Amino acid sequence: MKDGELVLLYSKGESYIVSAGSKDMHTKSGVIKLKLLKGKKFGGEIKTHLGKKFVIMKPTISDILEKKAKRLPQIITQKDIGLILAYTGIGPDSNVVDAGTGSGFLTMMLANYVRPGKVVTYEKNKKFAKVARMNIKASGLGKFIKLKQKDVLKGIDEKNVDLVTFDFGGTEKAVKHAYKALRPGGWLAVYSPYIEQSIKVVREIKKKNFSEPKTVENIVREWQSGIYQNDVYTRPKTVGLMHTGFITFARKIGNGK
Amino acid sequence: MKDGELVLLYSKGESYIVSAGSKDMHTKSGVIKLKLLKGKKFGGEIKTHLGKKFVIMKPTISDILEKKAKRLPQIITQKDIGLILAYTGIGPDSNVVDAGTGSGFLTMMLANYVRPGKVVTYEKNKKFAKVARMNIKASGLGKFIKLKQKDVLKGIDEKNVDLVTFDFGGTEKAVKHAYKALRPGGWLAVYSPYIEQSIKVVREIKKKNFSEPKTVENIVREWQSGIYQNDVYTRPKTVGLMHTGFITFARKIGNGK
Amino acid sequence: MKDGELVLLYSKGESYIVSAGSKDMHTKSGVIKLKLLKGKKFGGEIKTHLGKKFVIMKPTISDILEKKAKRLPQIITQKDIGLILAYTGIGPDSNVVDAGTGSGFLTMMLANYVRPGKVVTYEKNKKFAKVARMNIKASGLGKFIKLKQKDVLKGIDEKNVDLVTFDFGGTEKAVKHAYKALRPGGWLAVYSPYIEQSIKVVREIKKKNFSEPKTVENIVREWQSGIYQNDVYTRPKTVGLMHTGFITFARKIGNGK
Amino acid sequence: MKDGELVLLYSKGESYIVSAGSKDMHTKSGVIKLKLLKGKKFGGEIKTHLGKKFVIMKPTISDILEKKAKRLPQIITQKDIGLILAYTGIGPDSNVVDAGTGSGFLTMMLANYVRPGKVVTYEKNKKFAKVARMNIKASGLGKFIKLKQKDVLKGIDEKNVDLVTFDFGGTEKAVKHAYKALRPGGWLAVYSPYIEQSIKVVREIKKKNFSEPKTVENIVREWQSGIYQNDVYTRPKTVGLMHTGFITFARKIGNGK
Repeated sequence: MKDGELVLLYSKGESYIVSAGSKDMHTKSGVIKLKLLKGKKFGGEIKTHLGKKFVIMKPTISDILEKKAKRLPQIITQKDIGLILAYTGIGPDSNVVDAGTGSGFLTMMLANYVRPGKVVTYEKNKKFAKVARMNIKASGLGKFIKLKQKDVLKGIDEKNVDLVTFDFGGTEKAVKHAYKALRPGGWLAVYSPYIEQSIKVVREIKKKNFSEPKTVENIVREWQSGIYQNDVYTRPKTVGLMHTGFITFARKIGNGK
Repeated sequence: MKDGELVLLYSKGESYIVSAGSKDMHTKSGVIKLKLLKGKKFGGEIKTHLGKKFVIMKPTISDILEKKAKRLPQIITQKDIGLILAYTGIGPDSNVVDAGTGSGFLTMMLANYVRPGKVVTYEKNKKFAKVARMNIKASGLGKFIKLKQKDVLKGIDEKNVDLVTFDFGGTEKAVKHAYKALRPGGWLAVYSPYIEQSIKVVREIKKKNFSEPKTVENIVREWQSGIYQNDVYTRPKTVGLMHTGFITFARKIGNGK
Repeated sequence: MKDGELVLLYSKGESYIVSAGSKDMHTKSGVIKLKLLKGKKFGGEIKTHLGKKFVIMKPTISDILEKKAKRLPQIITQKDIGLILAYTGIGPDSNVVDAGTGSGFLTMMLANYVRPGKVVTYEKNKKFAKVARMNIKASGLGKFIKLKQKDVLKGIDEKNVDLVTFDFGGTEKAVKHAYKALRPGGWLAVYSPYIEQSIKVVREIKKKNFSEPKTVENIVREWQSGIYQNDVYTRPKTVGLMHTGFITFARKIGNGK
Repeated sequence: MKDGELVLLYSKGESYIVSAGSKDMHTKSGVIKLKLLKGKKFGGEIKTHLGKKFVIMKPTISDILEKKAKRLPQIITQKDIGLILAYTGIGPDSNVVDAGTGSGFLTMMLANYVRPGKVVTYEKNKKFAKVARMNIKASGLGKFIKLKQKDVLKGIDEKNVDLVTFDFGGTEKAVKHAYKALRPGGWLAVYSPYIEQSIKVVREIKKKNFSEPKTVENIVREWQSGIYQNDVYTRPKTVGLMHTGFITFARKIGNGK
């Protein structure tokens, strides 16, 4: 394990992402000396000064986003990102443009899947761009991401793109730029928290030579199980996430601009 | 375009996956001479003998699975595959074992995302294995997939695996094999069409040193929009897919067997 | 059993609503002589000429609506009617106005619950009013329903109403009439198949002295169970009703017009 | 308005159920002298000593349950009660038996709809029965409800019942008693928080001469709307009730015991 390498310390009900070799970390179960990680391997263990064991794991991109990245409000969720991956079928070496970087969660997830390909992401808000830069650096995916602090409503510089993703207010005004940037057969995926925004985007998409737009919402229902009076019981969790956003998908037909 | 290369011919409401250079194809809009694809580029056009234009596109893995692969009953859907990708955070070079290949849809989607890494997939049923082999060949992902015609209940040969996925009857009996095969921090994802199967799997997972298992269902609701008496109208589609399966996720803690 | 009385003939997988004493009925399981119902009691049995037994039952309003009433397109469903009953808390002797009678399903269900109170229902379309009249007659609820063939946009004649229900195009233009007709504390419930209509209704409600409007959708998911290879299996039905309509509820505050 | 009559005092964002003629009530908006209600009519107004106006309304059963009744944990919700009403089609004068009274919410709602008919309700737990008695008294529906402090597993005394509802642990053991009590064509509706309980109930129902049991869950999704930067926005609420219970419906066929 090299100094600065990201490490997931994991035990039941408690886990942390840390940098190997950095300063002592204070947890609710005691102090962990991160210097000691240096000699260890993934799969090994480290103890707090109170004796609680943590397993040393290699973090996935989902771990890093969940535990390490700084969140701005309204982050696109993993379920919605998964849907974008699966519907559009992008993969390693795909060519992606993302606009409305925010804290960079979608950017980083996309970068994880297209690497060694690249994601170019547009963010006009200076403060958001700063947060995103920090998060991207922490994720270790920096070389697969190019962040442009720029208003996407002024145009997209890239050409022959496999996927354009939008997540900002006023996305309908950028549909024409996406059309121009996409390769024939390339996908546009627009995330809209409000139905009015989704309706406007659908209207703009219909004006261009796209496939029939498809708007979906994705509801993940979590179940729980336990033991009550010697019986197993299983039921969906009482309260949960009822809505994140509407996602509109369309595919460029033809080779026009 | 090389002979044998997969090509997506796309027009509004009608599209096909074909092999460049193969025999004439009869469509409802007339005959397409696939020999003529040879001189063309992606983004170009080809016409049927009745004059209908199709744009020539590079297909994504999702196109290939949807239009080219042979389906056995009960295919895991793209929304569920997307959730597995996004929750587990696997990516290029991850190390994946899949059991219950069936027609190979999950295998191929996983292979698309872990390439140049490999997916090893187990299928004991001879007929299913044959269908999967055909599909894998057609997808062009053959070099990233190893299909073993073997019963996974007899054990998993691989070690230090990042993700094990299960989709067959009796998955609860193979949880211990997954535990052994996984690296510390590696994920198990089990697909269960029935709640009883999901309950049994949760029970087995709790016997091993896994994180608390999490079972979810993923409901995608599609919206439609149109014009009626000069007004736009937007509403969820009346009828849709209410259920595919329950997916149970858990993560190996520790380095035991 | 009196001649003309509605009777439910019920057996597993096959059931009919008939009038006692009417002509022979031909079913897929043979002929039933409805004349013979005269001497029988509820709970008794009657046989087809091929010997299949049907139990003679007293039908509920839900039976009559399901098996006897003529349906126009876009009937409000029982789940949505149930929600209107439960949220507004109307009951026997409540005073209800309904507009957009259609085939009369909502009218008849409401009448069943407010009897001996009355439901006044407005329908401007002659053809619909005719179908509704037939259905109301068949339901036996005629004395609790007054159908006015009249455009509700021209005003509601009734005063001091406990519940006003709307189900037609352009409901937003009638919100002011509902306000005037309602008693302080009375409820307005508007059914909108499209989200745009629901948005317009909410906007109008906010202009009047109503409580904060509440829009909901009601999704009923049906489960199925069976035996497969000696095991019980249970799962939600694969395909189902994803959407019927949005229902907006608001309550009149104050005693103004 | 008579002394002791239940009254709903309603203003935007704040409302109370009170007894006319009782002691002064302290609210966050000042003191209301309930003695003064005596001379007033429904639709009139009353002010707090700080001048905030409340409209005087006649409460519905839903108001009384929401604001007046004491809640034990796990109350069946109004959406689920609405479904039971609408699916079974019971109405005024129906004959209902309810078991597992709990705080009496389902009992009181059913009584509201069957009055002048009666609901007989069974509760073996002394503490629950006491709470239910208080709630029933407060609701004013006492003459339509008979509460038996008795274990329903020992049998149901009533015969020729239109609807039996169950909401307690171990409902599967009482299915046979429901069968005996029901009239031919009468309905059984069983509420199960856990899927295992629902599975057991379905199994028992299949042993008796009931129609094919139908298990459903009922998900109500609430929407919200507002103004943001001069635009209307509309979306489902982010977080909501994902699950209350499974409801299993079946109908007695035949006249056996």
